[in-house]
Amino acid sequence: MNDQLQLLTTAANVLWLLLAGFLVFFMQAGFALVETGFTRAKNVAHTMLMNMMVFCIGAIGYWICGFAFQFGAVNHAYPEVATAGAIAGPWAFSPLTLGSWGDSLGSGIRLGEQFGVLGTSGFFLQGIGLGVAGIFAFFLFQMVFMDTAATIPTGSASERIKFIGFVIMGFWVSMIVYPIVGNWVWGGGWLANLGRSLGLGNGSVDFAGSGVVHMTGGAVGLAVAMVLGPRIGRFNKDGSANTIPGHNIPMGVLGAIILFFGWFGFNPGSAIGLVIPAVVDASGNVTTAASSIPINLTSVAAVNTLLAGAAGGVGAMTYMWLFGPSKKPSPAMSVNGLLAGLVAITAPCAFVSSIGAVVIGLVAGVLVCLASFALERAKIDDPVGAVPVHFVNGIWGVLAVGIFAVGNPDTAGWNGISPAVTGIVGGNFVQIVPQLFEVLAIATFAFGLSYAFFSVLKRAGILRSRAEDELNGLDLPEMGEQGYVTGGVAVPGGQVDHIPVPAGGVSTAPAS
Amino acid sequence: MNDQLQLLTTAANVLWLLLAGFLVFFMQAGFALVETGFTRAKNVAHTMLMNMMVFCIGAIGYWICGFAFQFGAVNHAYPEVATAGAIAGPWAFSPLTLGSWGDSLGSGIRLGEQFGVLGTSGFFLQGIGLGVAGIFAFFLFQMVFMDTAATIPTGSASERIKFIGFVIMGFWVSMIVYPIVGNWVWGGGWLANLGRSLGLGNGSVDFAGSGVVHMTGGAVGLAVAMVLGPRIGRFNKDGSANTIPGHNIPMGVLGAIILFFGWFGFNPGSAIGLVIPAVVDASGNVTTAASSIPINLTSVAAVNTLLAGAAGGVGAMTYMWLFGPSKKPSPAMSVNGLLAGLVAITAPCAFVSSIGAVVIGLVAGVLVCLASFALERAKIDDPVGAVPVHFVNGIWGVLAVGIFAVGNPDTAGWNGISPAVTGIVGGNFVQIVPQLFEVLAIATFAFGLSYAFFSVLKRAGILRSRAEDELNGLDLPEMGEQGYVTGGVAVPGGQVDHIPVPAGGVSTAPAS
Amino acid sequence: MNDQLQLLTTAANVLWLLLAGFLVFFMQAGFALVETGFTRAKNVAHTMLMNMMVFCIGAIGYWICGFAFQFGAVNHAYPEVATAGAIAGPWAFSPLTLGSWGDSLGSGIRLGEQFGVLGTSGFFLQGIGLGVAGIFAFFLFQMVFMDTAATIPTGSASERIKFIGFVIMGFWVSMIVYPIVGNWVWGGGWLANLGRSLGLGNGSVDFAGSGVVHMTGGAVGLAVAMVLGPRIGRFNKDGSANTIPGHNIPMGVLGAIILFFGWFGFNPGSAIGLVIPAVVDASGNVTTAASSIPINLTSVAAVNTLLAGAAGGVGAMTYMWLFGPSKKPSPAMSVNGLLAGLVAITAPCAFVSSIGAVVIGLVAGVLVCLASFALERAKIDDPVGAVPVHFVNGIWGVLAVGIFAVGNPDTAGWNGISPAVTGIVGGNFVQIVPQLFEVLAIATFAFGLSYAFFSVLKRAGILRSRAEDELNGLDLPEMGEQGYVTGGVAVPGGQVDHIPVPAGGVSTAPAS
Repeated sequence: MNDQLQLLTTAANVLWLLLAGFLVFFMQAGFALVETGFTRAKNVAHTMLMNMMVFCIGAIGYWICGFAFQFGAVNHAYPEVATAGAIAGPWAFSPLTLGSWGDSLGSGIRLGEQFGVLGTSGFFLQGIGLGVAGIFAFFLFQMVFMDTAATIPTGSASERIKFIGFVIMGFWVSMIVYPIVGNWVWGGGWLANLGRSLGLGNGSVDFAGSGVVHMTGGAVGLAVAMVLGPRIGRFNKDGSANTIPGHNIPMGVLGAIILFFGWFGFNPGSAIGLVIPAVVDASGNVTTAASSIPINLTSVAAVNTLLAGAAGGVGAMTYMWLFGPSKKPSPAMSVNGLLAGLVAITAPCAFVSSIGAVVIGLVAGVLVCLASFALERAKIDDPVGAVPVHFVNGIWGVLAVGIFAVGNPDTAGWNGISPAVTGIVGGNFVQIVPQLFEVLAIATFAFGLSYAFFSVLKRAGILRSRAEDELNGLDLPEMGEQGYVTGGVAVPGGQVDHIPVPAGGVSTAPAS
Repeated sequence: MNDQLQLLTTAANVLWLLLAGFLVFFMQAGFALVETGFTRAKNVAHTMLMNMMVFCIGAIGYWICGFAFQFGAVNHAYPEVATAGAIAGPWAFSPLTLGSWGDSLGSGIRLGEQFGVLGTSGFFLQGIGLGVAGIFAFFLFQMVFMDTAATIPTGSASERIKFIGFVIMGFWVSMIVYPIVGNWVWGGGWLANLGRSLGLGNGSVDFAGSGVVHMTGGAVGLAVAMVLGPRIGRFNKDGSANTIPGHNIPMGVLGAIILFFGWFGFNPGSAIGLVIPAVVDASGNVTTAASSIPINLTSVAAVNTLLAGAAGGVGAMTYMWLFGPSKKPSPAMSVNGLLAGLVAITAPCAFVSSIGAVVIGLVAGVLVCLASFALERAKIDDPVGAVPVHFVNGIWGVLAVGIFAVGNPDTAGWNGISPAVTGIVGGNFVQIVPQLFEVLAIATFAFGLSYAFFSVLKRAGILRSRAEDELNGLDLPEMGEQGYVTGGVAVPGGQVDHIPVPAGGVSTAPAS
Repeated sequence: MNDQLQLLTTAANVLWLLLAGFLVFFMQAGFALVETGFTRAKNVAHTMLMNMMVFCIGAIGYWICGFAFQFGAVNHAYPEVATAGAIAGPWAFSPLTLGSWGDSLGSGIRLGEQFGVLGTSGFFLQGIGLGVAGIFAFFLFQMVFMDTAATIPTGSASERIKFIGFVIMGFWVSMIVYPIVGNWVWGGGWLANLGRSLGLGNGSVDFAGSGVVHMTGGAVGLAVAMVLGPRIGRFNKDGSANTIPGHNIPMGVLGAIILFFGWFGFNPGSAIGLVIPAVVDASGNVTTAASSIPINLTSVAAVNTLLAGAAGGVGAMTYMWLFGPSKKPSPAMSVNGLLAGLVAITAPCAFVSSIGAVVIGLVAGVLVCLASFALERAKIDDPVGAVPVHFVNGIWGVLAVGIFAVGNPDTAGWNGISPAVTGIVGGNFVQIVPQLFEVLAIATFAFGLSYAFFSVLKRAGILRSRAEDELNGLDLPEMGEQGYVTGGVAVPGGQVDHIPVPAGGVSTAPAS
């Protein structure tokens, strides 16, 4: 019966990973609604479809090469890591919970012996047997994480990006930018190994991706917003700014609640399982006991996520009510505050106490307001606040690990380093350093490279929509369909549909 | 390997509790949509944001003291309970499934030896190690239950409550009203112990909270609606009523489907796990066998929930079609019938047969219609029907346990009393009595105290919006943002946005 | 402790089935949004309510007799099947994972010894103990599958079907059509047994119901669309067609994302569990080892579903952009392409490689475009494209098993036949034959019988709405409530609400 217990343990771990992945997938609906609700009625078909197609495009791109670049080296020999820490093994970066992966995903590129930079196996999921449930579940989970990063820049680029430009951007993030950053932190790459290679704490620690996912997506979003330039009418020649309100607050709030719901897959699911099975030798003796570390991390992450998201909403609402321009509890900013709290807790959610989570969330709620105002002063037009939410609070989240981590015993051995992850509040002033490394690496690579890439696209004339299309709304000229249509009545977008009724009259007879 | 089995059992139980909690969280989106869809376009930002922020406010409030008040005594010594029944143990109220909680949550206040009234440990989740996965999951699950109660009165108070009044109401429910009622029924308090203390059946039995959650929320909702008074225009001076139709039926129906979806976490999840692990003594011998009672209750609850919700929709639709004012299958009332069926099955879902579930749902569907008409005759204005759905059918659900419980063998030992929960259809005329106790206790405490509290707020001028704001719509004056905005075109709410374009012209140059 | 392991294994299997069922339930929201968004504003209350009530009606109908017809014979003696294959047992059609069902669901009707056609036990769920968690979970899972089939024709019938006609259609599908088809393929009926009875490969193989669910629903949808005839204004007397655009693209896209999310329950959940428990004899010896086949199938199905849905979206978008009438990336068709990819992968998801999944999805994306154009040329009016998506791609999916199945070792023993399911790409030219049987059987039975049934309803005058109601919008005349209402302002649908304010003035005094 021990066989059955091991099978069931792995199956339960895989199931939780899959369910978490499904929840993260559903965040796509949240992004679609937030971005569409916070932009104008004349572009709704364009904005919504970007958010649906970014998943479709990204799935294909990630399947072609993204997954291979990110995780193709995950079983690569890092022998030092494999034996260094409490949760070490063939891969010290966690999927001990997902069964044996044999020799799959075992080739990559390194700089020197220590600095992994790219995986090189698993293209098109080839070479992986259909019975290796763990890898398939892992692929799905990682694909939807990538998708979150890929969908963030559609917000900052909305209302003025050509659809073909968006398509190229989708491949860009899913095939190149995200997988490489992801390799460095989660695929056994150099940032994760900074503890072992340079003695910097536990290396870069990012539980669920404040940096890997959100800051990366936000960095791409900042680049595309800067290259595209602001929407027509957003800034005046005298330097002052015009607010362009979103067309549908209920849509945006619904999106935020859906995102929060999905985040319960995003963060807790990043424990990648429930129970680490025991290691049994050939005689059937247990050589390493089973451990409930993953479910412990799952539970703590869930509660911290809940509290930080809530605190983010409270923080932004309170700040705007007391200090904002209108002195009222701004719905749009409250939404972004809630999302900012969620972004910020994403990296530290398994490492901090609930008090830490509330503080991180409250700060995030204020930070998103301040960043929004600063962005406007810098004349960067980000219609939905993707940069303040994801880029700025992604940075805040990565750094918060180095500040608020309390040395949760279940995190001992993280990245193959024995001590538990501990930040400044726990008296460890070193962990902030690899966190800064992660921030700088992502800012340089994701932002820098994307800025150059989008500049080329812009010069090629395939990035920014034509001015008249932007003024009239992108739905008809770009998509060929109006987003809102209502029988002869003026509606959002100001366009009217006509059902032509020819002089010959119409038929109502059944077709058969 | 037995260690691994015990770890995995607990982990699976915790996972199911977390997932159920996530589903319940998502109900917040359902409430937001139902309440906003069934009210007017001029208040959508106000109504939506209340539904988002009630979660944020409630999470903080429940973390501060709500959880401590409700469950701080759950491991308190009730030695008689601990040894009385089939599912007894350190806590006879269920979380045998969630692992050992040691000495956490073990202090509270009692009246005499038998009547627990309040917990007093667990404030700010302090004193609980990060590795105690079970408590964190339990906190999350209970927090979202509280949130359901807290969001109900935002419906009955909508379109005329000041936002600051709503904020105070959110703290009121999350910190005081709900936790105390919850303690009495689920935290080891006096209502749950009526079987042991006064010999009244199994004590008050409320599987998932028809009473604890829905009736409590509905009672607060009734109080706030009465204190606020009706919306301007709802009733005429001659006593007749005007119907104020909701602005968006699709939004309301979507909300109802989301609520139904979330209810599959609410009711089945209240089994709090899948399998009760065996108790093993120091020699490794099993002293109490493992049990699959929780998964059995989960499955039955799921099917009964499905059937009762469906029957509620059919009941209300049919009643309105045959007997309603318009003699048509009213969408709004069908939605409320479906929700009424769900509310009513919430207490009895694990105790009744599927025939019982269908009957309970059909009755609920009719009851919600009759209660809506009665409320109108009483000149109480409840814009979305929160009182007919949650208060009236919450009562119906609590009583239905005493009527329809069939003595499901898996419920033997409930609240530490040996026999299975059995109602009138099973020949037991006693169980209805503690059910009536629960109804009366909640009605007295939650409604009475809230009525007094809101009356104070009203006198302080912070409960009801200004009349001109109510007439023009609360979005701009209360929230500072319009809910619906569409470039120069008249839209729901009747307001038009203007993007000021100064004489100096606008810039389209990139900011960089 | 072995008892606990077996209990936990079953419980985990049941939980996954329930969770998958909940996800499938949520697809109802997706259908509601897609159908309402892609039709006109004047019918939104009618279209939304059909999609909510079809679940309520269907749940009751399926509980009365649908489940009994479909699965009442599932434990019937098929002794040959029971011993033939790798996953054989009392019922070779899978729920070995869900615990012992004793003598429940053991009576049915056969033609001869081999051809099961109908189950005859389990009406009203009677005769099933409340403790048999597996059957209750199974009922829930199968009920929501039925519901998917039942909701498909509300799309093709929208904007012109009388509500009473819809109610009858709901009972028709849930009580008669779907259960009988479902019996043939999943209830141990003759199509599943074609391998054993006629030597045709593994019999009809349909993992999650491209045929059973989608083609059946689509066949009913085609029948009702043909009998109803086109909407007024859809076709001109000269034979040309008018496009009637949907009123709300964001609503449709949101619906598509929700459907995709739910599909992760639909397809992976059809593995019906995680682990097949070991069979242990009286002495405690394992006679058949435990197996992780279900979680393997779950994981592969999840990834293939993800990829095929994505490829379907990419396929349709690309086709329309390059070859469509507007030469633009049509949002509406991209949505239907994504759904078509999901429908098409539903049958083959556990049997094909990821490359196969992408090909199946791309083809589905193109097929849905071509089928939509063909339907228009045939003058059949299907407002939301239910027939191209579900009927045409349901056929494609069933056939795709016979083409792309790669002989996944985990599918050995399917339907009691030893070899793994293999199609043409694996060198097996036989499996396509039972797949064609399934297609022909469903087309004949579901379409033929429904066409006759709807023709009777039409003649009785209870199928098609009155022409003036259709022209003015069905919401007020059929439902008694407008879908969209906005205080004095013209809105989608063109109707205006009036709040009567009598001369006597209105009261704002509190009711108490």
